[in-house]
Amino acid sequence: MYAIGITNDQSLSLQEAAVPELQPTDVLIAVEASGLNRADLMQRMGLYPPPPGASDVLGLEVAGVVTDVGTAVTEWKVGDRVCALLAGGGYAEFAAVDEGSVFPLPESLSFAEGACLPEAMMTVWANAFLRCGLQPGESFLMHGGTSGIGVMGLQMAKLAGAGTIFSTAGSAEKVDLCSDLGADVAINYREQDFVEIVESHGGADVIIDMVGGEYLQKNIAIAKPDGRICNIAYQDGFEATVNFAPVLMKRLVVTATTLRARPHAAKRQIRDAILKDFWPAVVDGTIRPILDSTFPIEQAQGAHERMSAGGHIGKIVLLKP
Amino acid sequence: MYAIGITNDQSLSLQEAAVPELQPTDVLIAVEASGLNRADLMQRMGLYPPPPGASDVLGLEVAGVVTDVGTAVTEWKVGDRVCALLAGGGYAEFAAVDEGSVFPLPESLSFAEGACLPEAMMTVWANAFLRCGLQPGESFLMHGGTSGIGVMGLQMAKLAGAGTIFSTAGSAEKVDLCSDLGADVAINYREQDFVEIVESHGGADVIIDMVGGEYLQKNIAIAKPDGRICNIAYQDGFEATVNFAPVLMKRLVVTATTLRARPHAAKRQIRDAILKDFWPAVVDGTIRPILDSTFPIEQAQGAHERMSAGGHIGKIVLLKP
Repeated sequence: MYAIGITNDQSLSLQEAAVPELQPTDVLIAVEASGLNRADLMQRMGLYPPPPGASDVLGLEVAGVVTDVGTAVTEWKVGDRVCALLAGGGYAEFAAVDEGSVFPLPESLSFAEGACLPEAMMTVWANAFLRCGLQPGESFLMHGGTSGIGVMGLQMAKLAGAGTIFSTAGSAEKVDLCSDLGADVAINYREQDFVEIVESHGGADVIIDMVGGEYLQKNIAIAKPDGRICNIAYQDGFEATVNFAPVLMKRLVVTATTLRARPHAAKRQIRDAILKDFWPAVVDGTIRPILDSTFPIEQAQGAHERMSAGGHIGKIVLLKP
Repeated sequence: MYAIGITNDQSLSLQEAAVPELQPTDVLIAVEASGLNRADLMQRMGLYPPPPGASDVLGLEVAGVVTDVGTAVTEWKVGDRVCALLAGGGYAEFAAVDEGSVFPLPESLSFAEGACLPEAMMTVWANAFLRCGLQPGESFLMHGGTSGIGVMGLQMAKLAGAGTIFSTAGSAEKVDLCSDLGADVAINYREQDFVEIVESHGGADVIIDMVGGEYLQKNIAIAKPDGRICNIAYQDGFEATVNFAPVLMKRLVVTATTLRARPHAAKRQIRDAILKDFWPAVVDGTIRPILDSTFPIEQAQGAHERMSAGGHIGKIVLLKP
């Protein structure tokens, strides 16, 4: 099969690779579309090695058709249209994945749209709901509101009955989309001080952030008492000088998680919660994938450059040749 | 009545004060014994103002006898021997407190012993159990193992069936007491590297810390995946430069809480959980107060100096003249 490999100069090119072998609980997916994630850029640069046992090919989510199933698979059969979260291996002709990380792709969605969903919805659920316990009526701040994660965070928080929903984004066009997706207070961080604005609305109970760096202290400043701040990445740096006095005084939780290294059972738990609470809204179109652009997989390098540049809105997706 | 006041030079002396007025759900306690807490030292220095509505007299816990009850009190009657958590006002002849913050003092315990319990047990429960969700079998690190909080943390974790229990303390005598109270691995931090030792035992699921400063990164280093680190104070400083990469990779929770500013209902919830899960062990002597020393209340200044010096083991308590 073909797969995207990383050359010595950290660029991407189509190469020959072996079709992955199936574990008993794996399904094999003929990949029609692969979603990009920022983690892919870090992995390409050698900064985010795949966890033990995972493919060293890039790609954390795909949509496609089941072409084979392991001996213990019970949920899926050959021919099923699906999308799935992977620990790696998505930029390829075929991908193997534990059946508990697979979602049924609704007929109403294209493969490209399906490839926008697994990583973003599972990340939002694992962080805003499972880790931070976002409750109906609680205020919610989604940084990076038009990122792949952000567009799902806003829609899922809205559907779950969050109170005031705040978002940050870096252009007028992006701010408009945040409002469309459910943000009550959509902030252009290039022109406005999000700390001042969120404070003027009473603060946030739950904050999802991927910026880190100086945002850490700012998030602490605008969290409400008993608030929870969860980082899913630290794009401006893992290291920061933080004054924890407000963490103590407001009884805050500062936390961070990734999906990738979790065991299959944990991913299945997250998948099942989404199937129950949010997938019906995907099927009926209430929650919609936001597809920025598609690239043929052989142009994966160009897709990465578009993500690096930061002008995209929603998901960038690779399509099979 | 008498009460300890703070003079202009931040020292303590006995003064005249008004007997506190009762809210409908308050009981009035004739104070026999008042427990010292580090927060008292900070408040004396002007660094920890009492929350709105609280007495500006020092003192966060007392033991004594109920001498009056508010019109809506249902749990207590005049003459009951009790101990209680206060938001302030403990260094005095009488203290008023919401009935939901009051515990029945077992006949087997003296007033001085009773004054060792409320703040420490409620702090341990609120942090190790309520906030951090310490589960049976999970490993637990109690910094400051012979502090007022530490001696209760070790005993309560042991009773709750924690796995490996680690503690840190600063002398051979203190380390021995930690072992007596339930620590499986009692570390003298002046002579040993607690990071190395805890790591060699596989790390800690839950860490309770009052040191802060450089301990923040060290705690992050030795927390197990999905571990929870909770600060109840930051004696070495609120500010630290922290690298959050391991927080993300290990999905850690970094949090901190205080009891003092919580509403009555929250304190009642904590009190009720302790009455159910831990008070029987206080009554039968399985959990025992560790009383360092007593001072007549008019020597409160000397009691504070003993706490500042740091040589104490367990609780320092003031007794009525």
